[in-house]
Amino acid sequence: PRRRLLTLDEYVAGVRGGDRSILARAITLIESNAPAHMALAQEVLRALLPYTGGALRVGITGVPGVGKSTFIEALGMMLCERGHRVAVLAVDPSSSISRGSILGDKTRMERLSRHPNAYIRPSPTGGSLGGVARKSRETLLLCEAAGFDIVLVETVGVGQSEIAVRGMVDFFLLLMLAGAGDELQGIKKGIIELADALLITKADGDNRARALAAQAEYTHALRYLTPATEGWRPRAYICSAQTGEGIAEIWREIERFRDETTASGVFAARRRDQARDWVYTLIEDHLRTRFFGHPVVQGQLPAIEQAVVEGTLPVTTAVQTLIQAFESALQGEGTGS
Amino acid sequence: PRRRLLTLDEYVAGVRGGDRSILARAITLIESNAPAHMALAQEVLRALLPYTGGALRVGITGVPGVGKSTFIEALGMMLCERGHRVAVLAVDPSSSISRGSILGDKTRMERLSRHPNAYIRPSPTGGSLGGVARKSRETLLLCEAAGFDIVLVETVGVGQSEIAVRGMVDFFLLLMLAGAGDELQGIKKGIIELADALLITKADGDNRARALAAQAEYTHALRYLTPATEGWRPRAYICSAQTGEGIAEIWREIERFRDETTASGVFAARRRDQARDWVYTLIEDHLRTRFFGHPVVQGQLPAIEQAVVEGTLPVTTAVQTLIQAFESALQGEGTGS
Repeated sequence: PRRRLLTLDEYVAGVRGGDRSILARAITLIESNAPAHMALAQEVLRALLPYTGGALRVGITGVPGVGKSTFIEALGMMLCERGHRVAVLAVDPSSSISRGSILGDKTRMERLSRHPNAYIRPSPTGGSLGGVARKSRETLLLCEAAGFDIVLVETVGVGQSEIAVRGMVDFFLLLMLAGAGDELQGIKKGIIELADALLITKADGDNRARALAAQAEYTHALRYLTPATEGWRPRAYICSAQTGEGIAEIWREIERFRDETTASGVFAARRRDQARDWVYTLIEDHLRTRFFGHPVVQGQLPAIEQAVVEGTLPVTTAVQTLIQAFESALQGEGTGS
Repeated sequence: PRRRLLTLDEYVAGVRGGDRSILARAITLIESNAPAHMALAQEVLRALLPYTGGALRVGITGVPGVGKSTFIEALGMMLCERGHRVAVLAVDPSSSISRGSILGDKTRMERLSRHPNAYIRPSPTGGSLGGVARKSRETLLLCEAAGFDIVLVETVGVGQSEIAVRGMVDFFLLLMLAGAGDELQGIKKGIIELADALLITKADGDNRARALAAQAEYTHALRYLTPATEGWRPRAYICSAQTGEGIAEIWREIERFRDETTASGVFAARRRDQARDWVYTLIEDHLRTRFFGHPVVQGQLPAIEQAVVEGTLPVTTAVQTLIQAFESALQGEGTGS
């Protein structure tokens, strides 16, 4: 049964008061693609904006099987026990097909999901990465307005979604497995360069020695990379969600990061840059979608692209043809309206 | 005195016949921003397209002072002496201000510029990087149609121009200096990842031992990076334009690259991908320029951006406002035309 929308004031007061049911409904509103919902969602967001920005935002990524959810549960439980209020969000564009391929399974973080200080929200099913990222960013702001002081943003190792998450968090943590052979195989190009720390998981039992070796190897490799954050040298750590080793240590590292970058001004500067970049990203997404989604372009593009690749049509000519067709169609629409 | 334009047939026959004077005039036509010239230039290009693609395209970059022009002169002379026909182009967006800050100085490659097998063309002064890159790509095609079998594309170490050049060449060579301290300081983020080989220059006299040490260091560092070309492991080399050491060796490496990637199909696949990517890049450049260059957007953007950065305006609202203003303005123009 569809519930009525709340009023602007009801959403704002509810979120501000930390009412989880209203927070969940506000997030659902933010995630809706219906025009009427989108307009109200933007009003809610605008009213709550003065109360956002207070959380430490931490991105967490790693390939499937690295143990992201067990790590997040262990870290989240520790932080909740210390009195923090922890929101866990996910960014996973692929979940639009399978409805929640990460964080969708309620049993995955069963203990954490029952903790009164924790709030877990699966990835929005938004279609494009741009849509998913927009909804996740706005959800993050709602969680801050609701008083969560730590937001963990989980994503999967598909490349583009890491860049989107890097653009919305303060600290970015890459979870890695100690492999059998070359420690550095299987890392997506450029992902290590986004990270403020590497964390080798499952460092327990027979695997602990391998994890320590991988830590030494990565520590060396990190010397050759430009740090993701100005003035901060990323390091490699080990942890075990099973024994608990390394969980408190990695959080100390994240707190040290926050303290140092806050003192240097890098923390605030990144937040400003992220807001500005987000404007440009959304505009460019819109322009691209509008052009490549237009029936005239969709009709002509395949043959033109083929001619370019075969070397029978100069690229500049191809582009001029497409742009002229698109702009003529737009002007026709303008005249007709 | 301005010379008359040649006819389409005169340009095509002249370039195909290897007439340097007509080649130079065809390049000038390609570089022109006048609409009448652009239309003719595209016709010339289209007629010559079947005769392009025959050169090995090599990009060369490095920070100022690394010795790019002395290296290119030494390499170019060696290749010309072996009977190759060598074109040297430059991509340097900054030259739009100073009219040729690289390759502009005729004395820089004096010997090579006098060799009958060589053709040197300074960077076009196109304003934006997109404009410069478009002109350089099309100049490269003209040089191929004129029978040059090796094209060296030089660029400066400013980051974005390396990415543009990587998108138009088969092999990308990064020149580096053996530094005194940490060998890896001062490399622009991500530039090493674009390279198919590193070449440490000025390996002569007292500097040769330092160059060898740097070579060992880089050889180690390259293990940690994802190769720029599928199946090709980049390595570090040393050279001296003064003693001639290493010049023949690096060319052997480039030939080995061509042979191996041709056999594996990676060479042809990259050329196809480059043509396709170029279409998308030009379209996105156009869409961006049209949006951000529109007076309505230019009028509203500064205040909106400021409000977003200060946290008083939600990003999505800001973007919606800008897009609506832009599209209303366009429709008005459409109706009026």
